[in-house]
Amino acid sequence: MIRHAFFRAALLVLSFALGFAPARAGAQGPQATPAAVERWGSTEITLPGPSTGNPFMEIDFSATFTQGARKVTVPGFYDGGGQYKVRFMPDAVGVWRYETHSNRPELRGHKGQLAAVAPSAGNHGPVRVRNVRHFAYEDGTPYWQVGTTSYAWAHQTEALEQQTLKTLAGAPFNKLRMAIFPNHDDKSEAPRFPFAGQAPKAWDFTRFNPEFFRHLEQRVGQLRDIGVEADLILFHPYDKGYWGFDRMPADVNERYLRYVVARLSSYRNVWWSMANEFDFLKEKSMPEWDSYFQTVQASDPYQHLRSIHNAFVFYNHTKPWVTHVSVQSGAIAEDYERAVLLRDVYNKPVVYDEVKYEGNFSRRWGQLKPEEMVLRFWMGAIAGTYVGHSESYEDPNGMMWLAKGGVFKGASPPRLAFFRKILSESPSAGLEPIDKWQGHPFAGKHAEYYLGYFGLGAPKEWPFLLFKTGLQDGMKFRAEVIDTWNMTVTPVDGTFEIVKRDNYYFADKNGRSIALPGRPYMALRIVRVQQ
Amino acid sequence: MIRHAFFRAALLVLSFALGFAPARAGAQGPQATPAAVERWGSTEITLPGPSTGNPFMEIDFSATFTQGARKVTVPGFYDGGGQYKVRFMPDAVGVWRYETHSNRPELRGHKGQLAAVAPSAGNHGPVRVRNVRHFAYEDGTPYWQVGTTSYAWAHQTEALEQQTLKTLAGAPFNKLRMAIFPNHDDKSEAPRFPFAGQAPKAWDFTRFNPEFFRHLEQRVGQLRDIGVEADLILFHPYDKGYWGFDRMPADVNERYLRYVVARLSSYRNVWWSMANEFDFLKEKSMPEWDSYFQTVQASDPYQHLRSIHNAFVFYNHTKPWVTHVSVQSGAIAEDYERAVLLRDVYNKPVVYDEVKYEGNFSRRWGQLKPEEMVLRFWMGAIAGTYVGHSESYEDPNGMMWLAKGGVFKGASPPRLAFFRKILSESPSAGLEPIDKWQGHPFAGKHAEYYLGYFGLGAPKEWPFLLFKTGLQDGMKFRAEVIDTWNMTVTPVDGTFEIVKRDNYYFADKNGRSIALPGRPYMALRIVRVQQ
Repeated sequence: MIRHAFFRAALLVLSFALGFAPARAGAQGPQATPAAVERWGSTEITLPGPSTGNPFMEIDFSATFTQGARKVTVPGFYDGGGQYKVRFMPDAVGVWRYETHSNRPELRGHKGQLAAVAPSAGNHGPVRVRNVRHFAYEDGTPYWQVGTTSYAWAHQTEALEQQTLKTLAGAPFNKLRMAIFPNHDDKSEAPRFPFAGQAPKAWDFTRFNPEFFRHLEQRVGQLRDIGVEADLILFHPYDKGYWGFDRMPADVNERYLRYVVARLSSYRNVWWSMANEFDFLKEKSMPEWDSYFQTVQASDPYQHLRSIHNAFVFYNHTKPWVTHVSVQSGAIAEDYERAVLLRDVYNKPVVYDEVKYEGNFSRRWGQLKPEEMVLRFWMGAIAGTYVGHSESYEDPNGMMWLAKGGVFKGASPPRLAFFRKILSESPSAGLEPIDKWQGHPFAGKHAEYYLGYFGLGAPKEWPFLLFKTGLQDGMKFRAEVIDTWNMTVTPVDGTFEIVKRDNYYFADKNGRSIALPGRPYMALRIVRVQQ
Repeated sequence: MIRHAFFRAALLVLSFALGFAPARAGAQGPQATPAAVERWGSTEITLPGPSTGNPFMEIDFSATFTQGARKVTVPGFYDGGGQYKVRFMPDAVGVWRYETHSNRPELRGHKGQLAAVAPSAGNHGPVRVRNVRHFAYEDGTPYWQVGTTSYAWAHQTEALEQQTLKTLAGAPFNKLRMAIFPNHDDKSEAPRFPFAGQAPKAWDFTRFNPEFFRHLEQRVGQLRDIGVEADLILFHPYDKGYWGFDRMPADVNERYLRYVVARLSSYRNVWWSMANEFDFLKEKSMPEWDSYFQTVQASDPYQHLRSIHNAFVFYNHTKPWVTHVSVQSGAIAEDYERAVLLRDVYNKPVVYDEVKYEGNFSRRWGQLKPEEMVLRFWMGAIAGTYVGHSESYEDPNGMMWLAKGGVFKGASPPRLAFFRKILSESPSAGLEPIDKWQGHPFAGKHAEYYLGYFGLGAPKEWPFLLFKTGLQDGMKFRAEVIDTWNMTVTPVDGTFEIVKRDNYYFADKNGRSIALPGRPYMALRIVRVQQ
């Protein structure tokens, strides 16, 4: 059926944003010239439509965006007050034409176009998998994941949320795991809820609360503005039936997921985490998780990263809808020879999002010393994997970064900033373990770059020995000694010229070693000298 | 089409074996009364048929065995000399009726019956997966895998093969990994080959050499007789193109697999290992491996255990045709916190078939001290997994257990016999890790049985602390100190009565500890005293 689009053009409301948060109240009136939006920015088309009945249940709304041979179908959503929106994140510059679709005549056949312009500084696009087990922004810029977690930071007061944003703006973390649903464990009532109705349990699961989502979107947009990926946790078990968001019927879960994806997928910094500690959500079966993953995969026009976080049971991350591995394990990142195993199993990027937290909490998952927290990031990196931080220091006011955000009390963040800086100076293809057989604490790129880490070992020297792959007699290297705790980088005098020693190693031709201070947490950086 | 079976009954040749190796020359003549075979024994029907043309390629032969509502279709094979055979392993006692099928009239429609009788002592049926991550024989007897490897032992002289069998008969190992194809690495020519033709390369891949397989079957039967499972390695990379069995065309590979399965699947002690170091077989792609797995799965009427062994790349063991995990890793079994990870990932029994070998070989995979070899078995057990042994001691005559068999030179076998005895006294459901969070070196069954292992740690005492699951104040336990190297079990005086200590542990109510000798390789066994 051909729609009389021109006759409805006068109804078109197109709002747009240059690069960052989508404007919520766009320019009214006909759209004669293309709106401008950055590549990987978010723009929004708003149309007035029915407000009677239950638009959430009864009205379908979407748009198709076309550029040359490419066509992207984007789900829209009802934003309350008779307003229908569809949000678009163009992934290529140039003109995009669009047309709306709906089961209601007044919402369909609206056509228009917009111009996507070059991204501004700091906009590198969404994070993608690169080189099998690593990440990069879509423009090719390496993304070295240094994550943190604050589950309910976006369910706090305005003042506290602003403080959290300020903390993050000065912190080393480029990913934040955060829950969409509020957290009953924090013993405070949440300020707003995703469904219409009355707390704690009188919910109308057929109607969303747009104000809740507008707040969430504002926070996700603010994270984007400070360079932080928002790893959105779609379900979690910390409701414990209090509000019941952890045990909604399957059709509500599916509708909720589609609504979240429609609202949030145009934010380039979004990642989807199907759940935190999914195996503690006893109401959901494994086939349901598979189905929810597939719903998100099918709904998201931009294919943001998808994973799921566990307590004791591992999800089968080999399934095709899992883009990267997200794992909780108390012990796995304490040792690079453990950490490397899941990487080998899954052939996907591995993020150890929860490896215990820095703090002094009464539970054993929240008692890491800062040294132990930082060690896990380094061990993970030597294994070619990525690690997550959080803090669980006791506080008389119940303020714990892990739960509510606020400020850091721990000693690991500056060390993790130093760690991230070292990573950012590494080969852009990602750190790959140099020799996984046993006991070789180096990652990097054969014959070019070696990053070694001795952890709790406190050697007084390291005999200059590189694993054979790619090496030839006569190659020369320079070295630096890195104190990962005291955050110093000390060049070693001279260069090292190598000769083959045996079946496995090349050594310095004069048998030189590198002196080390006999303290723990030392690292080495060895870089080939181009001749 | 109805076959005139009675008119052909006079042609029927039925040979049978009571329990063990199938007789190769059976009783001739009409089969009036049922032949007898043990449950899980192997029996054989032989029919004369065409010997012209190429029977391997041109003639299909199989039989259906029926008992009540159950019907098992079993592939037959051409054994040369105009003889066609089908072998059957009944899994239930009682009368089984059979009928043969073929694309040749003289081989089809032969009917008969046989009686399966109760198994004799030592025959517990094939090994199956039990309790998700463990094994048991089909009659329910626990199977505690303590494996070894001798790749080419069945390609040696008669005298050496007999010596190997004698060694195994007195050894702790209940599984032997062995290759079907000979191993060019051992620098000797194999005495026989699986295909017709001339070594090294003039093979007729359309014709098998029945004599090769009859020898192999004899050896598999002898292993069965001494209680050793034969983990048959179907492909391996150690040919390196010399004979070319590592790079046969896909259709030859498929035919080879079906022939091997038809000949050997009635041996209850057979396991199928698709390959050793599959990722070193560069000629085969991952989809080919999937296909070969599926061929074996589809052909094997008895569904013997199936896995595949790697070098550096892990096969995706979550695939449904993989019954258990077989892994090579130099480091994984050195530490129970590493070893447990793949168990959690795969939710299948995990066998670390290659964890380096005991020996003094020039390569780093063959230099374990016997203490290190034994430690890996204990660490694997504490992780709820299983480990494999082999030996690679240098020998002036080129005799290495790993390659050719013979005798053991190492010190680990008696300790592994002791280890297996301890396992055999454990709960039959298998050892499960007690608390995987971190640093708790115990496996067993909550509130009943705890086996702890301290490895290289050499504690002088162990405070009596059990992880909370299943425990209640007032429960009593007795303890034994086990020296895994010196093979002693020393009871600890008295009993320990527990009280809850904190969020995680119960302790002895009087705060007692268990004294330990301050040596490495010590274990503890703690068993609930029924009151």
